[in-house]
Amino acid sequence: MSTDVESGEHCAYRDLDRRWGLPGLNAVIRAVVRRGISSYHHTIFGFRNGYQGLVDQQAVPLTLDSVRGILHQGGTILGTSRVDPLRHADGAERVKEAMEIHLLDGLIVIGGEGILSTAWRLHSELEVPVVAVPKTIDNDLASTDRTFGFDTAVTIATEAVDRLHSTAEAHQRVMVLEVTGRHAGWIATRAGIAGGADLILIPEKPFDIVQVARHLKRRAGIGRTFSIVVVAEGAQPIEGTMQIPEHDRDDYGRPRLGGISQYIAAEIEQRTGIETRVTILGHVQRGGTPTAFDRVLATQLGVAAIDLASEGRWGMMAALQGAEVAAAPISEATGRLNTVPERLYQVAEVFFA
Amino acid sequence: MSTDVESGEHCAYRDLDRRWGLPGLNAVIRAVVRRGISSYHHTIFGFRNGYQGLVDQQAVPLTLDSVRGILHQGGTILGTSRVDPLRHADGAERVKEAMEIHLLDGLIVIGGEGILSTAWRLHSELEVPVVAVPKTIDNDLASTDRTFGFDTAVTIATEAVDRLHSTAEAHQRVMVLEVTGRHAGWIATRAGIAGGADLILIPEKPFDIVQVARHLKRRAGIGRTFSIVVVAEGAQPIEGTMQIPEHDRDDYGRPRLGGISQYIAAEIEQRTGIETRVTILGHVQRGGTPTAFDRVLATQLGVAAIDLASEGRWGMMAALQGAEVAAAPISEATGRLNTVPERLYQVAEVFFA
Amino acid sequence: MSTDVESGEHCAYRDLDRRWGLPGLNAVIRAVVRRGISSYHHTIFGFRNGYQGLVDQQAVPLTLDSVRGILHQGGTILGTSRVDPLRHADGAERVKEAMEIHLLDGLIVIGGEGILSTAWRLHSELEVPVVAVPKTIDNDLASTDRTFGFDTAVTIATEAVDRLHSTAEAHQRVMVLEVTGRHAGWIATRAGIAGGADLILIPEKPFDIVQVARHLKRRAGIGRTFSIVVVAEGAQPIEGTMQIPEHDRDDYGRPRLGGISQYIAAEIEQRTGIETRVTILGHVQRGGTPTAFDRVLATQLGVAAIDLASEGRWGMMAALQGAEVAAAPISEATGRLNTVPERLYQVAEVFFA
Amino acid sequence: MSTDVESGEHCAYRDLDRRWGLPGLNAVIRAVVRRGISSYHHTIFGFRNGYQGLVDQQAVPLTLDSVRGILHQGGTILGTSRVDPLRHADGAERVKEAMEIHLLDGLIVIGGEGILSTAWRLHSELEVPVVAVPKTIDNDLASTDRTFGFDTAVTIATEAVDRLHSTAEAHQRVMVLEVTGRHAGWIATRAGIAGGADLILIPEKPFDIVQVARHLKRRAGIGRTFSIVVVAEGAQPIEGTMQIPEHDRDDYGRPRLGGISQYIAAEIEQRTGIETRVTILGHVQRGGTPTAFDRVLATQLGVAAIDLASEGRWGMMAALQGAEVAAAPISEATGRLNTVPERLYQVAEVFFA
Repeated sequence: MSTDVESGEHCAYRDLDRRWGLPGLNAVIRAVVRRGISSYHHTIFGFRNGYQGLVDQQAVPLTLDSVRGILHQGGTILGTSRVDPLRHADGAERVKEAMEIHLLDGLIVIGGEGILSTAWRLHSELEVPVVAVPKTIDNDLASTDRTFGFDTAVTIATEAVDRLHSTAEAHQRVMVLEVTGRHAGWIATRAGIAGGADLILIPEKPFDIVQVARHLKRRAGIGRTFSIVVVAEGAQPIEGTMQIPEHDRDDYGRPRLGGISQYIAAEIEQRTGIETRVTILGHVQRGGTPTAFDRVLATQLGVAAIDLASEGRWGMMAALQGAEVAAAPISEATGRLNTVPERLYQVAEVFFA
Repeated sequence: MSTDVESGEHCAYRDLDRRWGLPGLNAVIRAVVRRGISSYHHTIFGFRNGYQGLVDQQAVPLTLDSVRGILHQGGTILGTSRVDPLRHADGAERVKEAMEIHLLDGLIVIGGEGILSTAWRLHSELEVPVVAVPKTIDNDLASTDRTFGFDTAVTIATEAVDRLHSTAEAHQRVMVLEVTGRHAGWIATRAGIAGGADLILIPEKPFDIVQVARHLKRRAGIGRTFSIVVVAEGAQPIEGTMQIPEHDRDDYGRPRLGGISQYIAAEIEQRTGIETRVTILGHVQRGGTPTAFDRVLATQLGVAAIDLASEGRWGMMAALQGAEVAAAPISEATGRLNTVPERLYQVAEVFFA
Repeated sequence: MSTDVESGEHCAYRDLDRRWGLPGLNAVIRAVVRRGISSYHHTIFGFRNGYQGLVDQQAVPLTLDSVRGILHQGGTILGTSRVDPLRHADGAERVKEAMEIHLLDGLIVIGGEGILSTAWRLHSELEVPVVAVPKTIDNDLASTDRTFGFDTAVTIATEAVDRLHSTAEAHQRVMVLEVTGRHAGWIATRAGIAGGADLILIPEKPFDIVQVARHLKRRAGIGRTFSIVVVAEGAQPIEGTMQIPEHDRDDYGRPRLGGISQYIAAEIEQRTGIETRVTILGHVQRGGTPTAFDRVLATQLGVAAIDLASEGRWGMMAALQGAEVAAAPISEATGRLNTVPERLYQVAEVFFA
Repeated sequence: MSTDVESGEHCAYRDLDRRWGLPGLNAVIRAVVRRGISSYHHTIFGFRNGYQGLVDQQAVPLTLDSVRGILHQGGTILGTSRVDPLRHADGAERVKEAMEIHLLDGLIVIGGEGILSTAWRLHSELEVPVVAVPKTIDNDLASTDRTFGFDTAVTIATEAVDRLHSTAEAHQRVMVLEVTGRHAGWIATRAGIAGGADLILIPEKPFDIVQVARHLKRRAGIGRTFSIVVVAEGAQPIEGTMQIPEHDRDDYGRPRLGGISQYIAAEIEQRTGIETRVTILGHVQRGGTPTAFDRVLATQLGVAAIDLASEGRWGMMAALQGAEVAAAPISEATGRLNTVPERLYQVAEVFFA
């Protein structure tokens, strides 16, 4: 890897999320480019579709003009893919070659647990200079208080809870709202608190459907005509308490149609006799104009990432810690799952009565 | 029915929607009460839970204070129910009695097709003085250009389409969004046009799943990485073109879990090989702060209704016609379904390419 | 003007607003281009900055790709200007030349009163084939029930009224909100009704500041701690009832700093002793993502305009009439101002008590 | 002060903001009441209009029913006032009496710098048991990373910046947006970053109008047709660089009409020749449905406050520190102003180019 000092550093940027663009991604890209060019006179390249573009060795120059007007756009101007170069035959080789071809001094990798694990291995095993920006809608990465995209998702889910509340009427009804969160129930918990949910089911707290039904029936008994249950997609019944019929499961044993919420709703309706309806937000939560919070956070992280790169602090991840943007080793962020703390869930429980 | 002239007219108000409150309902109630009291010095009563309250003969006085601050609230302060007095043993008798007990000069009935049909029979067969306000989220009532609650629902659905758009990414994907509309595809069509849908399936246009799949595959073939299909809940496959398995149907043959969209999505995925995801908005569309448009419309209709009652124009419905609020016989409004006109759907089709 | 039949018709498109882009404009452009190319195989050109581009004779080809993803963007991809070719020395000549150079069969002109008056003269005096789309945030054009951009502006203004409402507190306060509307008070009236304003001042109804103050004082007297006054920028005091000091007026006698609302607020505070605060929305009302309503309307008008052009119905304007999109002579639309009808203002007055 | 152990603790709640309700306040009240009653079996009273109610010795019992449905409402169900009991002749005496009359064990005080300073003196000088919740839209209190209401205000201001952006057009224009922030420029800075402002003027950074004009002229020179300047209401010109004419100043020398932004705009227009327009958000920023973020924060702080009271940790304030809710001495929070850190402003400056 050669550094052409005269023409400025070359810090490649890429969007390496395994699966989805998410609100705020463009704000990170814009921040890296603006900071890199205006403050450091770097040359910045983007790789389309994350690691895919790196493996393809196809870099796109990112100029000030190319990032104009993208701040409040959802999604990503660079695209994403699921490619992992380390599972490619000669992936590692091609990555190193890509960096040589384009005279890159380092990579700024943006992604969630999978992407960052790969980034860490690129850095620690293959000596590729890498700086990371944490990115997951589900807020389940360690070492950072918050990931961007998360506030937008919580906002969208809260809006849905608000709207469900105002459809209240005379006869009993239960509303089940399914939100994302496969491994951690952050969105469900915060949107549930913000919206005033009457029950929140998250992966961290396996549920007993009998108790769920009893809780909702008790509410009906004391005159509440309406209950809202927010369910994280990864919510799990306690072993043996709820069955999903064979023909409703796919080859992995997961719900075949829709999500877990529809089976929960069917059980509730059957066990309580209360009409129960389902809303599944799905990818709606991953889109839209990012909130002001996410845009500021994404901008701060983008600026911090290029600052880290300029200082040669490879292997580090830009992170939000308190009111400050700081740096943490990538390996720490991916080493453990950031789940909903007991204390926050207890705040939610205060309002389940 | 007696009229107590000295204490002013008594115009009862009720919210008779069969099933749901919806955005703007409170704005109608407020308008009736403010106009009735301030302009006519009427005494206004509300019946809780629509016809239920009337059958129970329990009226609630509605004062200026009781309608303060409700303009922008979703739902209804009066509640709704599914009761139809004409299917009650002595329902008609109890309605007439209720009017005598509370010295009412007439009823203002707000509702959709079912409620208004009953209102018309109360008026034409039993000589109950009735004025109507059209109310349905689905915009499928005749004689009025628009029903309130509809603009809010379209706005919420459009927001969802916008958000799905911005999750676009590198590999192929189809997004299916299910919106309400059992008998008419108004919400799907307008939200589809407003959001830029790539296909819209509505009850008025039975679909051929083979052609749906072909359209989406063709789009993928010309480089579109993303397609959004907006589906009205009442969308129908052309007879014999798509089967819902026995164990997925309820006793009425309708989809047992979720809605038609999940079966459409499963078929699309199978026939095209493109990953397909579903969002089901459900009752989210029936809630929320009503849009400015719906609040103005609901206010205009409420004022017009009490004006009609004051003029003794019983049997009429307040309606939006062009830029004006006018009156139409209730029987005309319920006589036929207001479906999406060919011309509007053609506007949508321009953008399916 | 020659028509090259083999290569399809050439329908030029231009955005000729005198002053501002507004929400929905891009939706019109997109609709013209999609309809023109997909349905008619036309070749479409855009002129940047309205008549300016036409005078410059610089046309930009508008392809399907050039209008992708612009549906929900505020503003305009083409830009606007204040140029009027008929006030240019050889303006008319240059317009006709531009059409010959680019082999155009006609022009689609989008604009408000000024632009459309010029369009009508181009059509009627100079035989330029013109079709028009009405465009003004203020909804003051005749022959169409609604202009696009207006619903978005009303929505933004209503949001502001809602927010002011919820800052209510213990001691007396008056909130003055200034919205656009120089010649007609449409935005003020509809946002005032939708938001529940306690007073609405519009150009159509010159106000007496003494009565304004008395009304607000009376409200305070009956225990209302809060009053919201919505003021159209063109609101006029009755001759001789309110003075704006010399040093606060510009050369045209208009308020020098801020708008009329600040003088009204100062008078209210002085005459009632109630603390009075001002919000001036300004150009915020002209921007933002267009509402679903405006996007559908703009799309319908765009499709209708190119349909009119294809049918050779020159001199006509696409218009919304009732639930239908129809056509009206351009001269009728510009011939008179569409002001707030007495009936609508009376609906607002019901809630001033 | 007596404690009636058998009937549970009596923790009075009050809303003591000196001036305004703000988004999230109701969420705090609801949390205190729900947590206090459900978890601790406390009896909770509210004092209407903050210290005013305390001086009046009029307490309102707050039940579970009284806080139902208020979570997402802006403003406060209790009202606010500007009364400071320590400036009252026998204010301190009346406060202590009020606590004895109502058998209170302690006070939960919610407020900004002024209110909390008084609360601290009540606690430290008069031995009134007090727990505090920080409350200011301007985020200028120390010891807590964030105050509730702030995120909502930033969101509203960012929305305005977004909308101004999309009114962009062909000829040069400068948009000036005035937001709140008398002593600290938090809202201006974060909304400016989130919205992509081209210049941000805050109290922490006195500005030179000559340089402001030069910056905007330079932007125009490199082809930017549009510049957005976000101005905090407390922005200060460097001594001697900008004059506000005598007749435009009130008795305190502050701008008489509108705010500082109008004078800045007038100077910009004069110095650059570029048309300049102003938007003043005013109290719009203090209202509206609180964001999900603010509702969660307010709920967490409310729960923490009653927890602190139950533990007898008087003199402490609930605070957000990193991802955790913690406690800090009230005196620390009011001891110094929390201003925008250099580091955050530098992030904003990256985008001024």
